[in-house]
Amino acid sequence: MSAKSDFETLDFTKMAGLVPAVIQDPENGEVLMVGFMTQDALEITLRRGYVTFYSRTRDELWTKGETSGNRLRVISVLTDCDHDTLLFRVQVEGQGVVCHRGTRSCFTENVPLKNEDPAVLCAEESR
Amino acid sequence: MSAKSDFETLDFTKMAGLVPAVIQDPENGEVLMVGFMTQDALEITLRRGYVTFYSRTRDELWTKGETSGNRLRVISVLTDCDHDTLLFRVQVEGQGVVCHRGTRSCFTENVPLKNEDPAVLCAEESR
Repeated sequence: MSAKSDFETLDFTKMAGLVPAVIQDPENGEVLMVGFMTQDALEITLRRGYVTFYSRTRDELWTKGETSGNRLRVISVLTDCDHDTLLFRVQVEGQGVVCHRGTRSCFTENVPLKNEDPAVLCAEESR
Repeated sequence: MSAKSDFETLDFTKMAGLVPAVIQDPENGEVLMVGFMTQDALEITLRRGYVTFYSRTRDELWTKGETSGNRLRVISVLTDCDHDTLLFRVQVEGQGVVCHRGTRSCFTENVPLKNEDPAVLCAEESR
């Protein structure tokens, strides 16, 4: 669990220069949001200690909370076995709100499972 | 927190047919891995109740744990405010191991912050 990965070793090639960045509250494990980073965004984030994303829709870097004050102060950063995803543990500054809709987390909408007839699944799996 | 989002409303356009899928242990909040789903992968996941990803490197659907037995049984699914990311709470079956390297989580490598001189940051921010 203690291996270190320098940011230069991260793999930005799989998604045309981007990697997903999962933002988590280290106190309770809550996943607050997912954004994307370019290598520049990651370098700025690691240097400043505050999360800076790349906006796919606006095609620009943006420091989360720059205007609202709800900045994401980085506590720690992990990458995964493929070096193509980042996990940030952060402290949310300001009002502690991450989502633009006013909730702590952006993940608020339930996607229901489709309760398929188990017999259909068994038939499919035995094919 | 109780809004429902049908899977047909998810936005697969931002990443050429894919959305990131964050896999989390609901017991302790641990983020276990991040994969990607096409609409087909999501539909199969919701129907069967086990996580099926789309592999970007192999260009095919794959049900996590199909050979190892460490399948990811879906407890609940959330999407975010933009409907372009999924968060799965799962129970890891089999040996409870998610990473092919034998660890519970794929996120095991620390990416160190770069302790930049605060004076430099202040100068940058005041520009």
